[in-house]
Amino acid sequence: MINVAVVGGTGYTGVELLRLLALHPDVSLQVITSRSEEGIRVSDMFPNLRGHVDLCFSVPDLDKLAECDLVFFATPNGVAMKMVPELLARNSKVIDLAADFRLKSPAKWEKWYGMPHACEEFLDEAVYGLPEFNREAVKSANLVANPGCYPTSVQLGYAPLIKNGLVDETSLIADCKSGVSGAGRKESVPNLLAECSESVKAYAVAGHRHHPEISQGLQTLTSNALNLVFVPHLMPMIRGIHSTLYAKLVKTDINLQELFEKHYQNEYFVDVLPEGTFPETRSVKGSNMCRISIQRPQNGDTVVVLSVIDNLLKGAAGQAIQNMNIMFNLPESRGLESIALLP
Amino acid sequence: MINVAVVGGTGYTGVELLRLLALHPDVSLQVITSRSEEGIRVSDMFPNLRGHVDLCFSVPDLDKLAECDLVFFATPNGVAMKMVPELLARNSKVIDLAADFRLKSPAKWEKWYGMPHACEEFLDEAVYGLPEFNREAVKSANLVANPGCYPTSVQLGYAPLIKNGLVDETSLIADCKSGVSGAGRKESVPNLLAECSESVKAYAVAGHRHHPEISQGLQTLTSNALNLVFVPHLMPMIRGIHSTLYAKLVKTDINLQELFEKHYQNEYFVDVLPEGTFPETRSVKGSNMCRISIQRPQNGDTVVVLSVIDNLLKGAAGQAIQNMNIMFNLPESRGLESIALLP
Amino acid sequence: MINVAVVGGTGYTGVELLRLLALHPDVSLQVITSRSEEGIRVSDMFPNLRGHVDLCFSVPDLDKLAECDLVFFATPNGVAMKMVPELLARNSKVIDLAADFRLKSPAKWEKWYGMPHACEEFLDEAVYGLPEFNREAVKSANLVANPGCYPTSVQLGYAPLIKNGLVDETSLIADCKSGVSGAGRKESVPNLLAECSESVKAYAVAGHRHHPEISQGLQTLTSNALNLVFVPHLMPMIRGIHSTLYAKLVKTDINLQELFEKHYQNEYFVDVLPEGTFPETRSVKGSNMCRISIQRPQNGDTVVVLSVIDNLLKGAAGQAIQNMNIMFNLPESRGLESIALLP
Amino acid sequence: MINVAVVGGTGYTGVELLRLLALHPDVSLQVITSRSEEGIRVSDMFPNLRGHVDLCFSVPDLDKLAECDLVFFATPNGVAMKMVPELLARNSKVIDLAADFRLKSPAKWEKWYGMPHACEEFLDEAVYGLPEFNREAVKSANLVANPGCYPTSVQLGYAPLIKNGLVDETSLIADCKSGVSGAGRKESVPNLLAECSESVKAYAVAGHRHHPEISQGLQTLTSNALNLVFVPHLMPMIRGIHSTLYAKLVKTDINLQELFEKHYQNEYFVDVLPEGTFPETRSVKGSNMCRISIQRPQNGDTVVVLSVIDNLLKGAAGQAIQNMNIMFNLPESRGLESIALLP
Repeated sequence: MINVAVVGGTGYTGVELLRLLALHPDVSLQVITSRSEEGIRVSDMFPNLRGHVDLCFSVPDLDKLAECDLVFFATPNGVAMKMVPELLARNSKVIDLAADFRLKSPAKWEKWYGMPHACEEFLDEAVYGLPEFNREAVKSANLVANPGCYPTSVQLGYAPLIKNGLVDETSLIADCKSGVSGAGRKESVPNLLAECSESVKAYAVAGHRHHPEISQGLQTLTSNALNLVFVPHLMPMIRGIHSTLYAKLVKTDINLQELFEKHYQNEYFVDVLPEGTFPETRSVKGSNMCRISIQRPQNGDTVVVLSVIDNLLKGAAGQAIQNMNIMFNLPESRGLESIALLP
Repeated sequence: MINVAVVGGTGYTGVELLRLLALHPDVSLQVITSRSEEGIRVSDMFPNLRGHVDLCFSVPDLDKLAECDLVFFATPNGVAMKMVPELLARNSKVIDLAADFRLKSPAKWEKWYGMPHACEEFLDEAVYGLPEFNREAVKSANLVANPGCYPTSVQLGYAPLIKNGLVDETSLIADCKSGVSGAGRKESVPNLLAECSESVKAYAVAGHRHHPEISQGLQTLTSNALNLVFVPHLMPMIRGIHSTLYAKLVKTDINLQELFEKHYQNEYFVDVLPEGTFPETRSVKGSNMCRISIQRPQNGDTVVVLSVIDNLLKGAAGQAIQNMNIMFNLPESRGLESIALLP
Repeated sequence: MINVAVVGGTGYTGVELLRLLALHPDVSLQVITSRSEEGIRVSDMFPNLRGHVDLCFSVPDLDKLAECDLVFFATPNGVAMKMVPELLARNSKVIDLAADFRLKSPAKWEKWYGMPHACEEFLDEAVYGLPEFNREAVKSANLVANPGCYPTSVQLGYAPLIKNGLVDETSLIADCKSGVSGAGRKESVPNLLAECSESVKAYAVAGHRHHPEISQGLQTLTSNALNLVFVPHLMPMIRGIHSTLYAKLVKTDINLQELFEKHYQNEYFVDVLPEGTFPETRSVKGSNMCRISIQRPQNGDTVVVLSVIDNLLKGAAGQAIQNMNIMFNLPESRGLESIALLP
Repeated sequence: MINVAVVGGTGYTGVELLRLLALHPDVSLQVITSRSEEGIRVSDMFPNLRGHVDLCFSVPDLDKLAECDLVFFATPNGVAMKMVPELLARNSKVIDLAADFRLKSPAKWEKWYGMPHACEEFLDEAVYGLPEFNREAVKSANLVANPGCYPTSVQLGYAPLIKNGLVDETSLIADCKSGVSGAGRKESVPNLLAECSESVKAYAVAGHRHHPEISQGLQTLTSNALNLVFVPHLMPMIRGIHSTLYAKLVKTDINLQELFEKHYQNEYFVDVLPEGTFPETRSVKGSNMCRISIQRPQNGDTVVVLSVIDNLLKGAAGQAIQNMNIMFNLPESRGLESIALLP
């Protein structure tokens, strides 16, 4: 049994993590913290957990956390970095679902997240937890930076093209569509149903925090300079990300379908769809799968990769469990076998 | 291992059943039939099943079905009754998710379903598979009539009141709200998103086929004559039923909260919520739970019971699995432990 | 031209009022106030108004308001009552879309709204602005209390039955379903799309502020004591109220369809649907209509009236314009001829 | 008064056209045809029209149509082309909301629409009714081909860039998102709420019929060869198109905001939003506006134009009325002044 703590269990990433941990056969959930909800029964806030999680929220207590084998941070950005050094010193492992350890450059972190990094000496040690890129490093990691939702779907979609040098890396365009749970569970006018239902809009075109994360990840696949235009859009739905990825082919005499199928043939959580089909986000709703299809409109030199995930699973809590399984030598799919809820 | 066949696997009840069966540790899925989709890979029609169900749809073949320990019918009304006698004769057990064996009176069946019953001699043998009412009978049943979605939520909500003689049985009012997956997966204009999104309407007030089913079930709990007004409404969402049940109390000096809690204390799939709370349908989305709360507005003599289920789980496929578990001496919750997807 | 001011233009009632006023041929919009948004262009907050409303939000200034012929209050409860006496004294007319002047009893107001009334001497003078009940009084009113959304749909549905003594007034049950715009445009977790989409729930069963308002209004139609059970529900949609109204008939030999048609034959904004049809909320989306149908399940002694409105039109801003038209001797439908947006 | 007929009034384009025509002060609606619904009252099918449209559907009768000044075709593709020659011969004007006269090349028409053109000699005469491109020609036209929904939003978004030679015309990428009303009001499984709610998908990437229409229109703005990648997506909402348009700038020292504002300064129905803002589809829901904003991520050489319309208004029926107004010398906005419904 892995003794597990969750710091910050009141957001959507937190409750999804609790749902998965509660059903995981090798996990014993010990502590769930929330300063604001101290003493409240977790299942009073999230009635879906009634009968499955009996804990109450408690104030974060370093001693209690350090008794756990693994601490998940499902906190706002900037919280984990203040506690991680001490936890690692006491031999707890950490998976941070926020962004504190995703960027390797402390300068970039400060620029995009608006505060100096509290423990930049750990940025190198942190492993970026996209298993399809860094499985070996995750195995031996003590500190895993769990990727963002957009970055997961974009990197998995572009990887086979960039790694094999098939596209012009300087003119990548990622047009991404996300459900509103990606904006988190917090008081807000723009995310009211009455505001964002029956509507679509782009946002943050000038600069989204996931942009440097995506660029950093894709850049590891090529020595050429890489340039990405990233336009996120808000969709009137709860869950799901659909990334439509455009790239200019520099080699056109290649069977892209075969290339993708081969690239991902051993990946449990990446499913390359048959030629001529289109992934729907509902085909991954509630599951940890990423489904991908490859299109080449009019057989031209632009390739279009369509990549869908559930932002709360493969884009957050599911991927965190996948990383945990790898870190603790469990089968990678343990506790993640669920099938997408359709309809 | 229970060898299982599913007849009629192309509707919403069918795909939900396949999702649950594919993950059930004691089930081996042998046959999935569909006349119209013969030869098509099941996972081509329902991509969420990719990697979990490798079968193709086949034409129903009595010999192949009879080789299975259990045959589920997820067919339109009127199909199962033509095959059931032969299957039972060959020692297969049957769970019918359609309505063929729900009503005990062949005359009523013919009236509500518009065709004579093909094997009325089996109506008595068939067990109405609401485990919370008929668990013992289900245990030894060979033929189970799986209840309808509205009937499940209404009967579970009213049962403690009627069984204990607390309300006037002649003035029951069930105001029920359902998501549109209840209308099935078939070509239709009224159920297009562009028609039924951003709208609410009542329907079938003059007479809904679930009305006689509910009345028949509730009548088993009392010797008094029972009269029910049942008004179903269509909600702009996929899954979920919310039943708002009104009744006139004939005894008012009773603790209804305690009564309900005691009545359902041993039921895994019925959750009586704490006093003063309200069930949301999303708290059961994707799970087999029925959550109930009891309200007594202004401490008057009208009691209001709120009862929510996922129409495709406790209202259809989940309850069918629950019945299978009982029939085959498995723990009742086997394969049904999933937690509702929230958000 | 009627010179008009709107106090509190940042909520959903406010923006809907602005939409209607901007297109009204007899209105000149002079002032739109909001303390929090002072100086902001109204159309920057509500881009649908670009090109139609050029005003900026200003801080409420009694002198400027008093220069207008008519002041609408689209403010939170408790604001209008502090300014109304002075405005009336200066000969401005007032329509309050909040609840300050809806209840005739100051004790009840204090009980339900949690504060003493600031000018209870005006409660008698205020006319409850449901034109179908009080048209004559509205004509000469200086102060109109615009009804709530639920109360409008419930009262219009029950009126012909109660006024004609056809039902038992002590066992009325109003099961109402509302879109979430009814909860207002304010920061909130429960009204996030990710919380209330794909879900239905009841709320406030113990006591909703619209309950005393409905009872007070219906009581004016009968000398018998009246008792109402009122259960509001939240629907996953933006606009619309569907009231399902139950009552026990005390006379059953009456043609209810004819009765309703006759009762409302001269009402522009109440449409009695043909027998056997069901109103959909989308059939009034964006229009000031109330559509009603009458059902009598199994020809029993329970009548079911279905009544739908757009909560922001006939349930708020539209009805306010209707009242304005009456107060200023304009055709009642002026500026309200729009047809519901379907689909 | 313009005497008007509508051929094919049972689809979404048809009912929207009827809504607009019923309120248009200069129109007298004479005939609404539908073979399948002959004799049915139009307002029985579309209850929002009750009290506004009293006609019944009739079988198309050339004599009756020819008595009208103007005949709208809101029919499936391939219907109008069979009747237009005769109507024009009898001096009726025609606006076809289907695709029969949009493409200038009969060969392309046959390729994309799967049937030979019935009157290709009229393709030259037909004016492509995008008023912002072809206003003068529309004025004197007898036959107007009303543009498709995607083509309207894409062409208006790209026009200032291409006309001024600012971008590389060979690498245009239009990533478009549409509500499901665009798929029409017809029986269908994929467009059921239970199928397409809570999901996003791309479709028709290999070739969509609007592709040649867009290319033909944009090509009129430049003498350079033009190449477009067009990827349409289905959104879980009823109305609205959001086009995200990518292009490579060949001149970067230009103020794009000013350029767009100037280009559209005299257009009533094109609204260039302030710098740094993003159009939401809901800001045009129910209105004939196209709202556009211009983005230049990281000040790079890719420009991103965001263009939103209501697919049933500016993308279909609204634009048809706009064309009618031009053809009959009415103010262009007559009957189209409505403000978008928000929320």
